[in-house]
Amino acid sequence: MKIDLLIKDVKIYNSYLKKFREANVAILNKKILHIDIKKEIEFDAEEIIDGKNQYMIPGLIDIHMHIESSMMTPAPFCHQLAKNGVTTIVAEPHEIANVFGARGIYAMIEAESNIDTSIFYGIPSSVPSTSEELETTGAIIDCEGMKKIAENPKVICIGEVMNYRKVIVDDTLEICKFIEYVKKEKPTYAIEGHCPKLLDLELSKFLYLGINGDHTEHTMEEFKQRFENGMFVEIQAKSIEKELIDYIKENNLYEHFSFVTDDVMADTFLNEGHLNAVMKKAVREGLKIEDAIYSATFTPARRMHLLDRGVLAPGKKADFLFIEDLEKFEIKNTFIDGKEVYNYLEEKKYIPTSYKFPEDFYKSVHVKNIKNEDLKISVQSKEKEVMCRIIEVNDGSTRTKELIRAVPVKDGFLDWENSEYCLIAVFERYGKNGNIGFGLVTGDSIKEGATATTYAHDHHNLMIIGKTVKDMVTAANRIIEIQGGICTVKDGNILNEVKLPVAGILSEKSVEELGKEVEELRNAMKNLGYKHYNPIMSLCTLSLPVSPELKITDKGLIDVTESKVVDIIV
Amino acid sequence: MKIDLLIKDVKIYNSYLKKFREANVAILNKKILHIDIKKEIEFDAEEIIDGKNQYMIPGLIDIHMHIESSMMTPAPFCHQLAKNGVTTIVAEPHEIANVFGARGIYAMIEAESNIDTSIFYGIPSSVPSTSEELETTGAIIDCEGMKKIAENPKVICIGEVMNYRKVIVDDTLEICKFIEYVKKEKPTYAIEGHCPKLLDLELSKFLYLGINGDHTEHTMEEFKQRFENGMFVEIQAKSIEKELIDYIKENNLYEHFSFVTDDVMADTFLNEGHLNAVMKKAVREGLKIEDAIYSATFTPARRMHLLDRGVLAPGKKADFLFIEDLEKFEIKNTFIDGKEVYNYLEEKKYIPTSYKFPEDFYKSVHVKNIKNEDLKISVQSKEKEVMCRIIEVNDGSTRTKELIRAVPVKDGFLDWENSEYCLIAVFERYGKNGNIGFGLVTGDSIKEGATATTYAHDHHNLMIIGKTVKDMVTAANRIIEIQGGICTVKDGNILNEVKLPVAGILSEKSVEELGKEVEELRNAMKNLGYKHYNPIMSLCTLSLPVSPELKITDKGLIDVTESKVVDIIV
Repeated sequence: MKIDLLIKDVKIYNSYLKKFREANVAILNKKILHIDIKKEIEFDAEEIIDGKNQYMIPGLIDIHMHIESSMMTPAPFCHQLAKNGVTTIVAEPHEIANVFGARGIYAMIEAESNIDTSIFYGIPSSVPSTSEELETTGAIIDCEGMKKIAENPKVICIGEVMNYRKVIVDDTLEICKFIEYVKKEKPTYAIEGHCPKLLDLELSKFLYLGINGDHTEHTMEEFKQRFENGMFVEIQAKSIEKELIDYIKENNLYEHFSFVTDDVMADTFLNEGHLNAVMKKAVREGLKIEDAIYSATFTPARRMHLLDRGVLAPGKKADFLFIEDLEKFEIKNTFIDGKEVYNYLEEKKYIPTSYKFPEDFYKSVHVKNIKNEDLKISVQSKEKEVMCRIIEVNDGSTRTKELIRAVPVKDGFLDWENSEYCLIAVFERYGKNGNIGFGLVTGDSIKEGATATTYAHDHHNLMIIGKTVKDMVTAANRIIEIQGGICTVKDGNILNEVKLPVAGILSEKSVEELGKEVEELRNAMKNLGYKHYNPIMSLCTLSLPVSPELKITDKGLIDVTESKVVDIIV
Repeated sequence: MKIDLLIKDVKIYNSYLKKFREANVAILNKKILHIDIKKEIEFDAEEIIDGKNQYMIPGLIDIHMHIESSMMTPAPFCHQLAKNGVTTIVAEPHEIANVFGARGIYAMIEAESNIDTSIFYGIPSSVPSTSEELETTGAIIDCEGMKKIAENPKVICIGEVMNYRKVIVDDTLEICKFIEYVKKEKPTYAIEGHCPKLLDLELSKFLYLGINGDHTEHTMEEFKQRFENGMFVEIQAKSIEKELIDYIKENNLYEHFSFVTDDVMADTFLNEGHLNAVMKKAVREGLKIEDAIYSATFTPARRMHLLDRGVLAPGKKADFLFIEDLEKFEIKNTFIDGKEVYNYLEEKKYIPTSYKFPEDFYKSVHVKNIKNEDLKISVQSKEKEVMCRIIEVNDGSTRTKELIRAVPVKDGFLDWENSEYCLIAVFERYGKNGNIGFGLVTGDSIKEGATATTYAHDHHNLMIIGKTVKDMVTAANRIIEIQGGICTVKDGNILNEVKLPVAGILSEKSVEELGKEVEELRNAMKNLGYKHYNPIMSLCTLSLPVSPELKITDKGLIDVTESKVVDIIV
């Protein structure tokens, strides 16, 4: 029988038995035709590959991730994915959607039109992440907007519903209306959640709405309640601990979770990898490699109803990897649709594509140059100090704590420069209202200089943190000048910067270039005293008003648990 | 918090842990709201039920079955389902579709419009089961016809593709065109197969087309190949053997199969049960009851993407059963949408619904009265005997064997009445061509008298088997007179009959009435010498040209393996 490709002598992964078996594999028209474990059929093959008794496993599938978290555009991102064995992703572009709305999403889809990697999309369901009362974004996507996005054939699920405290008490929200629409019109859509700390009846209420997945970090009790109540669990690297792996093994829960990356920055992507790195961590914590493969291929495909992939069996998409040493899990070759897209012996440099984002995407920071006066916080009180709400940053987490501390007052203004605290300010950058939100920060954050960024989840306004007004102004104005990015400043000098010209959040550089820049930025922030294991992530989520406990937007300080703006001065 | 129903103190089945846990269960608006394992929340419940520490499990789901196999119409059928704990079925109405085409399907859907049971439909993909060359049916459903049926919201999958030998070699078939359409337009549709004996590359080719389930009876090697190549395995009672259960347990294959009933006759339904009986058999063969429940609830729902059910968890449909004794698995109460539909203490008789099928459904046997001459088979040969193909019926299976044996000739006609063989004849009954097909039968079939039926898979023409011409003519004419049914005749007298006035294949009686009639018929056939464990099923599948090896239609004898008409005389 005539076929396109015959792969001889591999140890192929069987997803049903969760075992490797020796076989020849026949591929016809981009799909697996036959797995010949008897090695007895003579095929008339266009091409024959000697599998050299390597391990052959399905291409990895990451169903919960945000390309924008890498600050990379789709083309260089997918180039690096191939190297890491990831052949299908479900991306949720809520970062670019916060800046440019549906146009941002369509631009991302267009940007990857010539890429081999399969990219599916989740509908950003929380743009803004909370509401117009708590943050200003470049765009708002309401129920009707989501319905329109759902018509795109690459869209296959609802992206993470983040406003989790509100949706369980207020079914008039746009997202609640859209969920009802989806349950009726697209009943096979996965509905992704984001519900850290939610437990017991509140968790049930969240599930009752139809939201059935969660990828956030949890305590064991939180993980258990999710598994046991039918929430599909998406496990990121930071959630992997021996206790969780033991619980999964003990209860045979393999079919109810998958590994995901959620957010991978360019330097981590370059140095550590992607979904393959998450799998490796799980194996280090005690998971069998066969089970890790299962949860990075079979279960994610099934969760997303991508029934044509995630397994190497007759009729399925010929996306697969070769691995020589299962322990090391180093990917030697990656194939998509039966075509080699990565070969470790002949690694190809990323060549930029000709795609250009729409012109206005490169001019998206609509803030006038900032002056020292813009950072003054007036105080009504005649006291020498006032009690203020302080954001406490803690290494190891993106959650913060609210502290109430005394801060000196001078000439009717908060004299924070003469305190142990940093100032943090968020300038609305879409030319909508000119809002400025202020807060104070302590803990494992910077101790000198300043950092400014337009990469600030999820609203991506211009956020500046600093120990001196001067450094903050310098940093902010540099970011306005380059129309988006992140920079560090000390003593009035720019130490380091990452340009993010596309929508103020993305670079078009290769992972090697951007990864290096991001690494340098990370080190610069550490040198300014940022003690967090991931200072960029920590800083960029200080602006995320769905991540507990005290955060900041252009509207001011946000009490996340109460979902409301609170004053800096108590 | 205000809820509709609070069930206190049950041992509720958790599908993720595959364990029972004590809890109170809150139900709101037909769905589970919360499973309170801490039993700590005070709900303001409209109604409270004392669970009395009984077991609470999800309603059973049967995803591969044909209502018509019971010869019952939907209303009495579903009444009996409730008693057996089955709350959702995926019915494939190819029997009535062979008689009345899409009209038959819509009539079935209309007939169940006031029933609590959820009935979804598979699109009959093989009407006729083979082709116009091999059988005449009342209707033909081509690709365009299937597309139209797929628009009905109750339709959720492609019903069994039966012409399995042909589809793997001829992609111009209507069903192949339709499968391609479905893979593109309805990628989450399950595509059910029917492929007994198919193995190795041929099985792979069948899977390669996208057909991904099989419910037919198999050897262990056949079962293994199906599991290991990604075919969803649907296990009927007759397939359950210890060896299969052991293989499933050993390889932890619980998520890859479900129990199904396929065909349940009215007397079996009445006396033994339905999907609950299949589960019980599996438990007797060594499956843990917790795993049996899983494969009759969770896996079938997932297979069919019925994601709102199959599990008792927040947000899921409140379809559930109470069971006092897990070993006995006697269903005490059945609830659908949180409403009791069966209570063993107050069992309700079936009250016929007012629904009437269209008038022509009651007048569907278009054959003129039969005369003795109609059953003569002329022979060209001048020899005293000729070698003939004989259908050998074997107890234990619906498969037959082809024998070649000498049959006497007298006056230019086969003198089969003076042989050890029965005659079998199929009269086309749709008024289309007046075809008559003839064959000879031996083995475990009847030894005297005659049986006639319009219930003859799948074409449902008028089929008569008998040892004498006289009895055959009497039987045939009785069935024409009553416009459908099955009867037995001996010495010119009607012994027994089951009237099937709807389309010649269905009765509108309750399971108690029809079950008794079917049981009597079964006994009458046994008394005529039919030694098969299920003589009705055996007889009614002698006409099924996709079930190996030698079968009969109005076109004549069918060599099933070769998919062609063959002569009775070799």
